Amino acid sequence: MLIVMNHNAGKKQIEAIIKAVELMGYSAAPIPGSERTAIGVLGNKGYVDDATVRALPGVKEVIHVSKPYKLVSRDFHPKNTIVKVAGLEIGAGKRPVIMAGPCAVESEEQILKTARAVKASGADMLRGGAFKPRTGPHTFQGMREEGLKLLSLASRDSGLPFVTEVMSPDTVGLVAEYADMLQVGARNMQNFELLKELGKIKKPILLKRGMCASIEEFLAAAEYILAEGNPGVILCERGIRTFETATRNTLDLAVIPLIKELSHLPVMIDPSHATGKRSLVPPMAKAALVAGADGLMLEVHPEPEKALSDGPQSLTLPGFEKLMREIDRMISFIEG
Amino acid sequence: MLIVMNHNAGKKQIEAIIKAVELMGYSAAPIPGSERTAIGVLGNKGYVDDATVRALPGVKEVIHVSKPYKLVSRDFHPKNTIVKVAGLEIGAGKRPVIMAGPCAVESEEQILKTARAVKASGADMLRGGAFKPRTGPHTFQGMREEGLKLLSLASRDSGLPFVTEVMSPDTVGLVAEYADMLQVGARNMQNFELLKELGKIKKPILLKRGMCASIEEFLAAAEYILAEGNPGVILCERGIRTFETATRNTLDLAVIPLIKELSHLPVMIDPSHATGKRSLVPPMAKAALVAGADGLMLEVHPEPEKALSDGPQSLTLPGFEKLMREIDRMISFIEG
Amino acid sequence: MLIVMNHNAGKKQIEAIIKAVELMGYSAAPIPGSERTAIGVLGNKGYVDDATVRALPGVKEVIHVSKPYKLVSRDFHPKNTIVKVAGLEIGAGKRPVIMAGPCAVESEEQILKTARAVKASGADMLRGGAFKPRTGPHTFQGMREEGLKLLSLASRDSGLPFVTEVMSPDTVGLVAEYADMLQVGARNMQNFELLKELGKIKKPILLKRGMCASIEEFLAAAEYILAEGNPGVILCERGIRTFETATRNTLDLAVIPLIKELSHLPVMIDPSHATGKRSLVPPMAKAALVAGADGLMLEVHPEPEKALSDGPQSLTLPGFEKLMREIDRMISFIEG
Amino acid sequence: MLIVMNHNAGKKQIEAIIKAVELMGYSAAPIPGSERTAIGVLGNKGYVDDATVRALPGVKEVIHVSKPYKLVSRDFHPKNTIVKVAGLEIGAGKRPVIMAGPCAVESEEQILKTARAVKASGADMLRGGAFKPRTGPHTFQGMREEGLKLLSLASRDSGLPFVTEVMSPDTVGLVAEYADMLQVGARNMQNFELLKELGKIKKPILLKRGMCASIEEFLAAAEYILAEGNPGVILCERGIRTFETATRNTLDLAVIPLIKELSHLPVMIDPSHATGKRSLVPPMAKAALVAGADGLMLEVHPEPEKALSDGPQSLTLPGFEKLMREIDRMISFIEG
Repeated sequence: MLIVMNHNAGKKQIEAIIKAVELMGYSAAPIPGSERTAIGVLGNKGYVDDATVRALPGVKEVIHVSKPYKLVSRDFHPKNTIVKVAGLEIGAGKRPVIMAGPCAVESEEQILKTARAVKASGADMLRGGAFKPRTGPHTFQGMREEGLKLLSLASRDSGLPFVTEVMSPDTVGLVAEYADMLQVGARNMQNFELLKELGKIKKPILLKRGMCASIEEFLAAAEYILAEGNPGVILCERGIRTFETATRNTLDLAVIPLIKELSHLPVMIDPSHATGKRSLVPPMAKAALVAGADGLMLEVHPEPEKALSDGPQSLTLPGFEKLMREIDRMISFIEG
Repeated sequence: MLIVMNHNAGKKQIEAIIKAVELMGYSAAPIPGSERTAIGVLGNKGYVDDATVRALPGVKEVIHVSKPYKLVSRDFHPKNTIVKVAGLEIGAGKRPVIMAGPCAVESEEQILKTARAVKASGADMLRGGAFKPRTGPHTFQGMREEGLKLLSLASRDSGLPFVTEVMSPDTVGLVAEYADMLQVGARNMQNFELLKELGKIKKPILLKRGMCASIEEFLAAAEYILAEGNPGVILCERGIRTFETATRNTLDLAVIPLIKELSHLPVMIDPSHATGKRSLVPPMAKAALVAGADGLMLEVHPEPEKALSDGPQSLTLPGFEKLMREIDRMISFIEG
Repeated sequence: MLIVMNHNAGKKQIEAIIKAVELMGYSAAPIPGSERTAIGVLGNKGYVDDATVRALPGVKEVIHVSKPYKLVSRDFHPKNTIVKVAGLEIGAGKRPVIMAGPCAVESEEQILKTARAVKASGADMLRGGAFKPRTGPHTFQGMREEGLKLLSLASRDSGLPFVTEVMSPDTVGLVAEYADMLQVGARNMQNFELLKELGKIKKPILLKRGMCASIEEFLAAAEYILAEGNPGVILCERGIRTFETATRNTLDLAVIPLIKELSHLPVMIDPSHATGKRSLVPPMAKAALVAGADGLMLEVHPEPEKALSDGPQSLTLPGFEKLMREIDRMISFIEG
Repeated sequence: MLIVMNHNAGKKQIEAIIKAVELMGYSAAPIPGSERTAIGVLGNKGYVDDATVRALPGVKEVIHVSKPYKLVSRDFHPKNTIVKVAGLEIGAGKRPVIMAGPCAVESEEQILKTARAVKASGADMLRGGAFKPRTGPHTFQGMREEGLKLLSLASRDSGLPFVTEVMSPDTVGLVAEYADMLQVGARNMQNFELLKELGKIKKPILLKRGMCASIEEFLAAAEYILAEGNPGVILCERGIRTFETATRNTLDLAVIPLIKELSHLPVMIDPSHATGKRSLVPPMAKAALVAGADGLMLEVHPEPEKALSDGPQSLTLPGFEKLMREIDRMISFIEG
């Protein structure tokens, strides 16, 4: 059970609650938040009668928790959340949003060329990494702020808003200054300090599923962002780690309808990281749309064989153009 | 390296090969088959010059193996295999084949009612289990031969050919007497004695992927059937076991285009076992078709809440009818 | 709920039970066994009052099932089961039993040499494969009956009883004629027809855990053997399949104390298949004993570099001799 | 290939290297570090002749990389690293180090009581969480700086140095002010910004394996810390995520000898998080020591049933005392 206090509840009121809980035979654990304090009730088995505490001064709400998330759940918020990114609406149940671009920003020429090409093919947003999480320290780590500037340039040049990854709480401000949407990578899905920081900004967040995160943990990670006050979260499945090594990851498309049942947040799919193989990207992209995805994130590179990262899974510019024609046809079909 | 002997090669010819291999500095391992003997060459690192052995009497073929399969590979057989089942053609790149029916045959009434209903909704084949592999021995194990008779009755009554599971080498003959296609369940994918027996019959085989089988192992299992002389194998993905417990299994749809690259055999999808949840079946069924599946296997039950097995994942009759209308539309689009 | 009938219960008595169950508002599913019929009660939510059925003629016992196993559970049978193999006692809580030998029998010389050597080093039993389950059909499949004869010869010569794998129901009789203990391999853990056949013989069974089998499924597989009347089952952990590829499998040693809590059956460990790497076998063997294993199964080959299968994980004869000295010391310590 | 520059190499020297690499037909990616720049060479297939670049001014070293780590590898540094923590030596091949304490610091009384008790039983270090990564935001998140102060108090009181978790780059300084060793939790194993920050401090680091991290990724994560200049890293296995749900995680003990082959860093085991079940902790703790672990991390709580986190896996004070007696005996045996 969770007792949520009013945001102006004082120390005394909180202490009174704790005493009341202890008198009921349970333990009380205050959980200070940036806006308000909540008090967790521990040691209960099964349902707790909340009549006593509900009546005490300073109590805003008493929540009977069973799942580690609440704000993201459809029970709590039955209507679909629509996330707005620079004029685009994601999750509105209309045309899916296509984000495309290179894994990493490598040069002005590369990002400008890619942005213009994907725009011409019909992409809605530009993607590209400036801060790159890499398995080992001896590989290209991204162009960092310089990369943000190039993304910004390419965005203005092409007219496409852009999304890029943020890797630590202290760079949230910097990235938010440039990007239209901030991405949390799979490896940081449970970097809770980062999630909390992202909960405090106004920009929308694209949260990628950790490679061995359960759906419950994925939704609970999103809950961290919503709990701090930022409702604009998009969930992105990018493949999970399994015993199968023939593909880079195993794309778990069933999470699209599953998350739609459990949550009101939009769901996107990244078939590039999920499969790790260029030829598998188009069929999985189209399957994702049919399964109900609100958008796709696709890696596109003008010269994949020279890419500093993720070349084998990047679509070429003509490959992307071809896929977009198929996606257009698919979307017309879905829209019926 | 594998030296395949003529089917009438004698003991002396085989011994001469073994001696030749040993003189080359390798070990020779005779692998007797039901029709012919093959001789494995062991202890080599890298490619072996096969000129010496190729010239010896009785040698049919010398195969340089690197994968555990060859007959099923597209390298070896570039054209799609079309499996024919009682007039239907699976893998022909035309309309996908829909197989529907209950997890288990439970009674004459149940199977007749289901067969008529799925036929009316547009199914191409009937499915139903007479021999049921169950985790523990204290649950319903299937109606066995009585179930085969009821399936046969329902098949004649509805005009739908039927597929049913076979669980051991000694019942292959019995099941083949009744069924139009024999199914190997996920738990038996590496029951090699069963696979060999199925290689000796003329009926087509539906081979389900083991719940933790890699694609390489899946193809190698099919190789056992082809190696014994039965070319009619359909591969069926039914979800793999991962850490995620929110769905019964994790449906690995990327194997559709992946297997199409590696092999010439048809690929089907079973979204019922893959998800374990009725509401997830229709979106995954449609996604599978878009990804290129040659067919679907769907659990349908007139009263899922009373099913002796797999009720929660079975479609109701109206649910199946509704899905078939969407599938029809989807197929027209794909053929488009 | 499961209603177990007397072995001489007739058709009429069974029909009376079914009617009674249906009158209670549930479904009844007869489960015919080789000795007696059981009737599963379906459609109940929670506990069912069994007073009515318990009183009917022909009813032997009414079992309230929640787990898919009962006979193997410690609740049902609190005392450790001791499995006797040719004079050896496994699971008696005394000196662990060491089984050693090659993955596959390859020749008379190889198996005789190995048997004598492992006997001299202190092994209690000989192991070796005559029927080999191999991923693909183009690799060495074992010497089959010829292998059984060589194992028998080596057993008589060395005085060591032997265990060997059986792969199909129709060879159970043949293998049981030669072997002192029959092994079910990981790939056949859920080959239920094979398990049922093994339940009808008098020889002890070594059941290996499937590579993606949960502990619940593992115990339920053993239940199949016990349910048919054979109480002599030893459970053997041999590594499970995970995302980690640095070892062949992931050895799950925590199952030793876990199974000891849940079941009364002896537990063995096979560190050779679990790790796939010779250098990791000795530390894992010793760790298994400290964790409470009743025995070890170790691959030993006189010339691992020439082995037809599993060479890289086989101990050499001197390597085994060295490990046995450490194991002796370890056992003295444990018995301490 | 990686070209490591002298720490005083200037911009001009770096540009000369880049030009040279490009003239060789490859791409050059500068990787700025806190102390020196390295230049990655990309686009090569196989070995690159490094004669040209090796001769250029400012080049310190040319490394031919195949693994994503080098500094942590035993090839590079054959002798065991000994990590010193407040007088203790970890990895010296002598008596393993036992760290014990509660999952989370909850109160002064709790931590003082626990510290005194584990000290009395023979523990070498105190553990306890002040910053707690929790799946969802509505559960106890730790006492943060207040918790650090209490740990410090308990450390001084008991004479035990302490280790505690750090969750974000910006709190590294704060935690390092108090703790004798800083812990990176499993969820942050690939929080690369945190790892880089920890590479810049002088205190030893306990790096926990991510729950789905391969050994290669685990070592590469440690490489981030060493690459920034901190050689004092201890690797800690705490169970990986698999399909098995009977235990909280699957303890992968084979990594102890495996990591000892690949790396010179000390290895510890956390059997509490690995199993999630009190009764399984002692057998796994002892098995870990026999397998060669340099230390153990154990959760101990004076009243596990009231713990704010991880109660079911915490040892009681008498349970810990009993285990320490067995460990003492085990260590005497190992030291032999």
